[in-house]
Amino acid sequence: MVTAKIKILPKASVLDPQGKVVMQSLETMGFMNIEDVRLGKYIEIKLENMTKQEAEKTVDTMCQKLLANLVIESYVFDIE
Amino acid sequence: MVTAKIKILPKASVLDPQGKVVMQSLETMGFMNIEDVRLGKYIEIKLENMTKQEAEKTVDTMCQKLLANLVIESYVFDIE
Repeated sequence: MVTAKIKILPKASVLDPQGKVVMQSLETMGFMNIEDVRLGKYIEIKLENMTKQEAEKTVDTMCQKLLANLVIESYVFDIE
Repeated sequence: MVTAKIKILPKASVLDPQGKVVMQSLETMGFMNIEDVRLGKYIEIKLENMTKQEAEKTVDTMCQKLLANLVIESYVFDIE
């Protein structure tokens, strides 16, 4: 069994209001020296009967078709 | 400048309805061999004027105080 660990973030050019709210909350709580916060999704998918190579192709297709909104988000993933 | 990459997932013992919906959607789209999907949050925080050691402590405190709900979520992070 292989596990895909997918990180999805708003693209750098896209506003991230959720990230800004988290940043402001942290600053209100007294945390200093924060330059930027980006908030996105983290998805773990367990796949059976698949090699790492097959999983890599499959997960890339999953990201493009469903998991990420490619207009405003970018994704990276590891297969373990 | 250091970047903290934080992954937050519902604990294994906690139901993850969002993950289940993603799993069903993927199966409806024809993806096979999916054993499990867990959906959580991914947060990148850029910190200035901090060593990696300081950042590690700070980010751990951030996770415990604000970012993760420790009753139902667990977190891991890397500092880069």
